[in-house]
Amino acid sequence: MKVAMIAPIAWRTPPRHYGPWEQVTSLLTEGLVKEGLDVTLFATADSITSAKLVSVVPTGYEEDKEADPKVLEYLHISNVFERADEFDIIHNQFDFMPLCYSKLIKTPMVTTIHGFSSEKILPIYKKYNKHVSYVSISNSDRHPDLDYISTIYHGIDINNFPFNPDPKDYLLFFGRMHPDKGAHDAIKIAKFFKMRLFLAGPIQDEIYFKEKVKPYLSEDIKYLGSVGPEKRGEMLSNAICLLHPIYFNEPFGLSVIESLACGTPVLAYNRGSMREIVDESVGILVNSFEEAVEKFGLIYNIKRSDCRKYVEKRFTSQRMVSEYIEVYKRILNSN
Amino acid sequence: MKVAMIAPIAWRTPPRHYGPWEQVTSLLTEGLVKEGLDVTLFATADSITSAKLVSVVPTGYEEDKEADPKVLEYLHISNVFERADEFDIIHNQFDFMPLCYSKLIKTPMVTTIHGFSSEKILPIYKKYNKHVSYVSISNSDRHPDLDYISTIYHGIDINNFPFNPDPKDYLLFFGRMHPDKGAHDAIKIAKFFKMRLFLAGPIQDEIYFKEKVKPYLSEDIKYLGSVGPEKRGEMLSNAICLLHPIYFNEPFGLSVIESLACGTPVLAYNRGSMREIVDESVGILVNSFEEAVEKFGLIYNIKRSDCRKYVEKRFTSQRMVSEYIEVYKRILNSN
Repeated sequence: MKVAMIAPIAWRTPPRHYGPWEQVTSLLTEGLVKEGLDVTLFATADSITSAKLVSVVPTGYEEDKEADPKVLEYLHISNVFERADEFDIIHNQFDFMPLCYSKLIKTPMVTTIHGFSSEKILPIYKKYNKHVSYVSISNSDRHPDLDYISTIYHGIDINNFPFNPDPKDYLLFFGRMHPDKGAHDAIKIAKFFKMRLFLAGPIQDEIYFKEKVKPYLSEDIKYLGSVGPEKRGEMLSNAICLLHPIYFNEPFGLSVIESLACGTPVLAYNRGSMREIVDESVGILVNSFEEAVEKFGLIYNIKRSDCRKYVEKRFTSQRMVSEYIEVYKRILNSN
Repeated sequence: MKVAMIAPIAWRTPPRHYGPWEQVTSLLTEGLVKEGLDVTLFATADSITSAKLVSVVPTGYEEDKEADPKVLEYLHISNVFERADEFDIIHNQFDFMPLCYSKLIKTPMVTTIHGFSSEKILPIYKKYNKHVSYVSISNSDRHPDLDYISTIYHGIDINNFPFNPDPKDYLLFFGRMHPDKGAHDAIKIAKFFKMRLFLAGPIQDEIYFKEKVKPYLSEDIKYLGSVGPEKRGEMLSNAICLLHPIYFNEPFGLSVIESLACGTPVLAYNRGSMREIVDESVGILVNSFEEAVEKFGLIYNIKRSDCRKYVEKRFTSQRMVSEYIEVYKRILNSN
């Protein structure tokens, strides 16, 4: 089966630091190649893959401030569709834009919807609802007006996340510095218990970081910047608990799974996909800061080995890869 | 001949006030219909045309601050190309984006390049250089790396611009409030001669307007805001002279032609297309403020009737329409 994989081009595939869409695209691509599929990855030229790499864009537009994202986006996407006939299926990981080319080619297309940046992009998903197969990344992220061929939860390469039964003494926050991700609540929780906290992730909202995070940094509450893949496992595996006090309906939540893989349980605000990806054997779901401090102690009842097993069973990239292959087959059979 | 005309969707076609690309698109579309061509205008739903209007976008994204320009752009353009088979030729007036769909359809395409917003968009024009026919709007706006099928100067509907042999006592500046357009030099010139000056045009650069224009407004130097088509003729025809002290290589300069049609000569800085569209019988080209005040008096030697005749001969929409029909025929014959 010949697959064209359209990566986003905000970052390299896989990303150097942040870049969850590119991360998942990379894991899936490498997994498909391992399963023997003939995959062509359309991504930035500095991407690293065992698939055939096709690039018309040197590097991610988020990594090159001179780049014109709109120009790169158009060059990247048109290049895929101009070669559509070479493939049995096109898998789009790059949001709504590629949908708009899909009726001009014969190759069937599947799109992983990594989340809706706003309601304003819905008209495009609705327009191509019957024409392109949509995969949701959690049931909670499904939009009632759209049809989906499947929900496929992200998987991770569990080898990158070492299990550690014996953590150090800190709490960990892992996510963008943005009100949605709730770093400010993580700080409140750590302060309440007078515990150490590390915060890791890129600064997406400068004002938020300046007003809600920076003033509270101290000897015990440290911001580490964006942490690349090589340090991620170490950071996560040494934490007592991952704090995930989100203020938005998170479509999936990769860092939660990565944390659990290391044996580190999760305290999360119960929004978006959290109830689907965290059960009571591996984490605590709460609805507020007050409930978080009330229930925090339950974290110590969770067995770290259960967290690891939970991910091994449900959230490996192998599982994700097989589910996508299944979807490709269903699409090709129905065509 | 069945023509699909892709209008920009920043503004309505024709625009209510500002919107030169939409203005030209409208004039050409109406002219083609008069010549008996079967034209479908893809534009905002509030557009006004004698062609068939096809719209998937209610109103221009510059006129609706809630709109997502990217989403509207993708819906608008994909809709044209999904219907490409219905047309003999597609005429794109909407910048580089539609080029990226052009290899996925069979219908030939011509693109009027209304100017290069930056060098960064060139890779896309280069990519489709052999595949799409480009029309330049002046020779000076041609890029050396691109091939062009023709230069077609814009035309205007001369009936909208009444000739006035006997103007009032003011100078006129007509253009966006932006450093490129040089309103600040128009003010300097008017002040030097202690003459009245009206400034008309939308505020594109707020800081520029606040710092370089607003402080100099007075009883004699008045900013009128954006002036719609119904008042444009009156404003232009009553002026002694149009001041056009541009600081960029203007690709064309519609207001210059509109002014001349009213009999109003032009004092322009000699950049971009100016030497092509203004000759010494209708205007003065200078290279600086100093030269402008030195040569300003020559304006009074220009016969206003010569300005009118000049436009009647070279810059009517009828001339523009015939030249585009000629280009369409050349493209269809070579296909």
